[in-house]
Amino acid sequence: MELKEIGEFGLIYRLTQDLPSAREVIQGVGDDAAVLAVGDKWFLFTTDVLVEKVHFRWDLASPADVGFKTLAVNVSDIAAMGGRPTYALVTLGLPLDFPVEKVEEFYAGLKEAAEEYEVILVGGDITRSDIFFAGVALLGEVEPGKAKFRKGARPGDILCVTGPLGGAAAGLVLLESKEELLPETMAHFLRRKYRRPDARLEAGRILGDFEEVHALIDISDGLAGDAHHLARASGVEVNLYRAALPIYPPAQELGRRLGIDPARWALFGGEDYELLFTVEPSAVGKVAKALEGVGLNLFPLGFVEEGEGVKLVLPDGREEELECGGYDHFRGSFYEPTP
Amino acid sequence: MELKEIGEFGLIYRLTQDLPSAREVIQGVGDDAAVLAVGDKWFLFTTDVLVEKVHFRWDLASPADVGFKTLAVNVSDIAAMGGRPTYALVTLGLPLDFPVEKVEEFYAGLKEAAEEYEVILVGGDITRSDIFFAGVALLGEVEPGKAKFRKGARPGDILCVTGPLGGAAAGLVLLESKEELLPETMAHFLRRKYRRPDARLEAGRILGDFEEVHALIDISDGLAGDAHHLARASGVEVNLYRAALPIYPPAQELGRRLGIDPARWALFGGEDYELLFTVEPSAVGKVAKALEGVGLNLFPLGFVEEGEGVKLVLPDGREEELECGGYDHFRGSFYEPTP
Repeated sequence: MELKEIGEFGLIYRLTQDLPSAREVIQGVGDDAAVLAVGDKWFLFTTDVLVEKVHFRWDLASPADVGFKTLAVNVSDIAAMGGRPTYALVTLGLPLDFPVEKVEEFYAGLKEAAEEYEVILVGGDITRSDIFFAGVALLGEVEPGKAKFRKGARPGDILCVTGPLGGAAAGLVLLESKEELLPETMAHFLRRKYRRPDARLEAGRILGDFEEVHALIDISDGLAGDAHHLARASGVEVNLYRAALPIYPPAQELGRRLGIDPARWALFGGEDYELLFTVEPSAVGKVAKALEGVGLNLFPLGFVEEGEGVKLVLPDGREEELECGGYDHFRGSFYEPTP
Repeated sequence: MELKEIGEFGLIYRLTQDLPSAREVIQGVGDDAAVLAVGDKWFLFTTDVLVEKVHFRWDLASPADVGFKTLAVNVSDIAAMGGRPTYALVTLGLPLDFPVEKVEEFYAGLKEAAEEYEVILVGGDITRSDIFFAGVALLGEVEPGKAKFRKGARPGDILCVTGPLGGAAAGLVLLESKEELLPETMAHFLRRKYRRPDARLEAGRILGDFEEVHALIDISDGLAGDAHHLARASGVEVNLYRAALPIYPPAQELGRRLGIDPARWALFGGEDYELLFTVEPSAVGKVAKALEGVGLNLFPLGFVEEGEGVKLVLPDGREEELECGGYDHFRGSFYEPTP
């Protein structure tokens, strides 16, 4: 059987469905991070790896950008549980002819992210490899009982996101193009969204404090894919309103100039690292106010209903099934959802 | 500057010498695992990755062997701190044409090791990659104050090891040869030493219980290299007695038939995953007795003295400086020690 037949998430299901667990494992495989009860604390534990030519291209990102992003995407997974990161290990696979200076630049970007997110690097592993890869294993903590999961969404909840989407995907379009598609200020903004994602740590901790927030996930695969992850884990249907999708003005302008609907970037682009969550309608106001306190807005995107899957509601009221889409390592985009 | 100029350990030094630390970090970069004080517990945290064609070849090891080894080498790092492993994350980089069945076999081997060492798999990351790689990030625990480090060796200590060495290297020689170099029983024993290393968890916990055990490290790079790591971290000189090197009889026989001194395998082969430790002379007897309780022997190899570096003492009394040797990913074997 080939990987592209079952896809990344189908493979994970096959490999992990019969894993033994333990009383101390609050959450194992299947969320942004594992949650482990040890003594009177809850620990978070996650890992993510970036591979050359799969997750990034050296001609589009500096070594420092890749270093920063390697840690930031892991911090985002901790944010998506409502926690704070603590300690990290770093794994590097380096080709024999990889210049030492470039490794040092990578590490400088990594240390910059470590400082920003208050992560302490305590070790790792360096090996030779025909292709470059960089991984982080990250520990975090969350107050016992306050972790948020993908699986908590309830019918009646409002689906919300902490910021506009599609910025990273639009930034990548700009980086891949040799033409000057936008004025430099707008272009710089979008390129930075791709190169230096912000992990929404403060937002995650705020959302963790609200009982009325029932489910939480970060948008790494794209809104469509991550809404599917949330819907499947919670056993609910999610309705997304096309007209409600928040998209950065520079991304809207780029879409207009290229004749591309920027909603595609928001739905399928991924790498935005905003937090997607569901909340009781009565609490939307106070959650929005709390997020404003850290300079973020709350954007309502749609509703949670009984059922399964993700529907996109168009401005004229028509509904269409939204494919899982997003990025799958072994299938490419726009694959059918796994059962 | 090229990687081979400074080598793996020179690179690690350059990248990590100015890392910020924290009060809770009992041991950061520079030992088999990081040691972190959280609440009233001490956690161990380590990661190791195996890369196709660098750490193993598919024609010499089954997917299940590689899966088992990926976890076992990490467990060995926890053993080398005197701790016990708890939770693991697994990272896989898979080529697009990698068969699903082979991933499942890999996972079967990994789960076998998880069961043997009582590790719970709680998550991970799967990605596409032009080459196969498999990494584990492993958490562990150790009783506060009982962790053992590379840096504790004192002049006057006896250097000891928990088992014969060179088995894995001899096994690899057998696997790489197409000829029948040894009777099958002996050959099987050595091949298994290479394919399914035993992490010395029980030995590690026993050694952790003895105050008189001052330094501890696992033998992954080869006795010569790991003795250098221990000597450098402790600021001492280590004398190894050639006549005292314990070598498995099948490896001795293989060396005899091939005209190779099997001490080379013990000194530079690596991947034995026995524990190398230093202990006060007065406690050698009781430590040996405690190890016998779990079916292991204590083999004294030499002495710790004031000074630096590693000396090999030959049977006729002559001494020679022993190069760091062992395996360096960017230099190959037998490189000069880094300053």
